Amino acid sequence: MTDKMNLLMFSGEYDKAMAGLILANAAKELDVEVTMFFAFWGLWLVRDPEKISNEDKTMYEKMFSAFSPKGAEDLPLSKMNFSGIGKKLLVDMMDDHHAPHVIHFLKGARKKNVKFYGCKLSLEIMGFKQEELIPELEIVDAKTYLKSALQSNMQLFI
Amino acid sequence: MTDKMNLLMFSGEYDKAMAGLILANAAKELDVEVTMFFAFWGLWLVRDPEKISNEDKTMYEKMFSAFSPKGAEDLPLSKMNFSGIGKKLLVDMMDDHHAPHVIHFLKGARKKNVKFYGCKLSLEIMGFKQEELIPELEIVDAKTYLKSALQSNMQLFI
Amino acid sequence: MTDKMNLLMFSGEYDKAMAGLILANAAKELDVEVTMFFAFWGLWLVRDPEKISNEDKTMYEKMFSAFSPKGAEDLPLSKMNFSGIGKKLLVDMMDDHHAPHVIHFLKGARKKNVKFYGCKLSLEIMGFKQEELIPELEIVDAKTYLKSALQSNMQLFI
Repeated sequence: MTDKMNLLMFSGEYDKAMAGLILANAAKELDVEVTMFFAFWGLWLVRDPEKISNEDKTMYEKMFSAFSPKGAEDLPLSKMNFSGIGKKLLVDMMDDHHAPHVIHFLKGARKKNVKFYGCKLSLEIMGFKQEELIPELEIVDAKTYLKSALQSNMQLFI
Repeated sequence: MTDKMNLLMFSGEYDKAMAGLILANAAKELDVEVTMFFAFWGLWLVRDPEKISNEDKTMYEKMFSAFSPKGAEDLPLSKMNFSGIGKKLLVDMMDDHHAPHVIHFLKGARKKNVKFYGCKLSLEIMGFKQEELIPELEIVDAKTYLKSALQSNMQLFI
Repeated sequence: MTDKMNLLMFSGEYDKAMAGLILANAAKELDVEVTMFFAFWGLWLVRDPEKISNEDKTMYEKMFSAFSPKGAEDLPLSKMNFSGIGKKLLVDMMDDHHAPHVIHFLKGARKKNVKFYGCKLSLEIMGFKQEELIPELEIVDAKTYLKSALQSNMQLFI
């Protein structure tokens, strides 16, 4: 039987997104099946920066969209962000070591057929439309997430 | 054998409380046994706002109590809280979609017989008395949590 | 078969470090095998305050080192830190109840032979040298973490 890993991506921060995506890529290279469920702020990670739209949105949803990071590379750090200066410093340090960025790990995960789930309720509340998110994302409810998580060997809330 | 889910509720934030409680309710509807262990800031979630008391508390404990959110509905957001403005915005967006509040998901979990554990050491350090918390909460130590978690199909630290 | 617990220590905060280390100690007392994988900010927890050095570091790495907490006891709280005042208050409340500090739980975990892994990529990016960290720490990559985590009964991301 194949090993399975299930990650609930909740946080919407650059460093935590990197942690989750590095694990997803490494797991696929070990032939582990990987499911990522993006909920709440985690949805920021799967926004397509080129497909952001205000069509059919309420005033609140437009405000929320304006305050939200524009996709994976625009996420703040969970610590020492210092209005973006700390993040720039960290990304520079990553570049010094030729370490890939979050956007590259996300591309890798998409290419390696990681299963991408998005939380239906979070999408509705935050007013994101499916067309604004990466096309691999399947919109599901909490029960679908749970069934997948319960059948996995490991689950993390990131 | 019944599936089991174990959630360690650590964070004391409105959005993470909602995530944990939505999962707890959904799991019970799938006939999964659910245990929630409230530790540290997570105890804020199970404070009964009508039973807060300063009796038999040290000066430190009174200060700590005064700075603590008054129960589940009073918790801040983990991101974009903006002194409560961001939270109000999010709750309004939830109302637009007729999504229940944290307090409703907490009521649901209590009605569905989710097992509620509270961390003994956290209670002692923070100076909360059992009478100030919801009556379902059983006070246990870390080992009791671990035994329950090790027998579960999935565990999350929220 | 022995039960196994695997903790991914990511956050670098005093309260979350305490949670992880209390669980590690309690698990070992229940004869559970424990592996802790320190990544990103979590590496701050295993810095040896007496072995911090700027030798062979770039300017960025020196800056990063200067902004980083000097070991476990120097970590900030994840909430209510208030530039250290909130943390001092919490530590005083812990002392009132004769509760051990993070540094004591770390010593306990080392004495009880918890397996300590450090994330190779995080070390490289942040510019920490192995000599600056506790000697038990073995430097491994994400795949080594994953293999250990997949063979465990429970995994938490802290």
